[in-house]
Amino acid sequence: MSITITAFESSPDRGAGRARDMRVRWALEEVGQPYEVRLVSFAQMKEPVHLALHPFGQIPTYEEGDLALFESGAIVFHIAERFPGLLPADPDARVRAIMWMFAALSTVEPPIVDREVVEYLENGRNWQGERFAMVDERIRGRLKQLSTRLGDGEWLDGAFSAADIIMVHVLRRLEGSGLLEGFPNLAAYIARAEARPAYQRAFAAQLAVFNSGAAGPALPSKIPPGGMS
Amino acid sequence: MSITITAFESSPDRGAGRARDMRVRWALEEVGQPYEVRLVSFAQMKEPVHLALHPFGQIPTYEEGDLALFESGAIVFHIAERFPGLLPADPDARVRAIMWMFAALSTVEPPIVDREVVEYLENGRNWQGERFAMVDERIRGRLKQLSTRLGDGEWLDGAFSAADIIMVHVLRRLEGSGLLEGFPNLAAYIARAEARPAYQRAFAAQLAVFNSGAAGPALPSKIPPGGMS
Repeated sequence: MSITITAFESSPDRGAGRARDMRVRWALEEVGQPYEVRLVSFAQMKEPVHLALHPFGQIPTYEEGDLALFESGAIVFHIAERFPGLLPADPDARVRAIMWMFAALSTVEPPIVDREVVEYLENGRNWQGERFAMVDERIRGRLKQLSTRLGDGEWLDGAFSAADIIMVHVLRRLEGSGLLEGFPNLAAYIARAEARPAYQRAFAAQLAVFNSGAAGPALPSKIPPGGMS
Repeated sequence: MSITITAFESSPDRGAGRARDMRVRWALEEVGQPYEVRLVSFAQMKEPVHLALHPFGQIPTYEEGDLALFESGAIVFHIAERFPGLLPADPDARVRAIMWMFAALSTVEPPIVDREVVEYLENGRNWQGERFAMVDERIRGRLKQLSTRLGDGEWLDGAFSAADIIMVHVLRRLEGSGLLEGFPNLAAYIARAEARPAYQRAFAAQLAVFNSGAAGPALPSKIPPGGMS
């Protein structure tokens, strides 16, 4: 059964791989499944056809036969259940990997998204500087706790799993903020993930979409280590 | 194997059932599993013993034999996988229920938590009013989309599931804000969930903890419909 996902026709990140289709592409590359991509414009995302697939009018979505999903965490979870390679076989290790997916999305990501709210939606407000300081403090607190738990571990809990896809992608949203630099083990963790061939293929695929668009060549804020094929 | 969870020794919600242990209690009541509760103080939550269990220093946690979990979404997911009653048997319906758990936590909850940041952490700042307006607009947008999708449905996707536990608990954080009043089908959805015997038992259990504490009698902002046993 063929798999179709949706992605931005013109990603606001200009090909930096920060949009959430990257998570799904990466998971599909890790398990070696081909997929089709249907590009949607910002206008199309708010139209009934897309809202029937994604009630919150976002990307990505996932279609496979009669199954239609939205929400990147859920899609990556489904891919990890459906195909081998992204969840441990041991039942306790499996639920811990799923736990880290929830932790990445519920505990680590929200203040990072809030930082983007400050950066874009509160741009020009006279309180922006104070808000940056407050949200950066919250993010640093989370990063410190995550860094302590990761220690010198290679991945979050034993072998690479779906949880690392989500967590690394969440953390990558901080690139350019200067916040990751205080936590060398987290920076190394991200670099380790970005060096995976599946990551590289997924990154190249989403960048190709951007480069083929009318918006001109991409200006990714950072080329992933190991270069791009 | 006995189950032990952690909860606030003295919940800042004064027994209103908004702390995240309520989700876990409710799920355990729905599947009819007894559980022990270990209460932790704010000081204890930041100590090494608790941080070993929960790297982000929060509640709830879940222990069952050798398995230790944190993150309420993951714990409710585990309970739903471990015991029958909270996830559909049909594979597609099952993954859709899990999808709604992720949606509640990743898409609906973050702006609601941000509202609490504005209410408490930005109290007294001269921008608080403007921030309230901005975050309320984001929340209203999400509620409108959710309301449209729910329509006249009883639950999010067919039968009651773990997703409804998470979504209802997330939405309950808005009680008293005036935001839910614009969406009668969401208010009815919450009331329907609060009327479930399992919800009532879980609510009473967390309220009893608060009432037995040194902080004095609880002043819940709203007694759940159907009263409390």
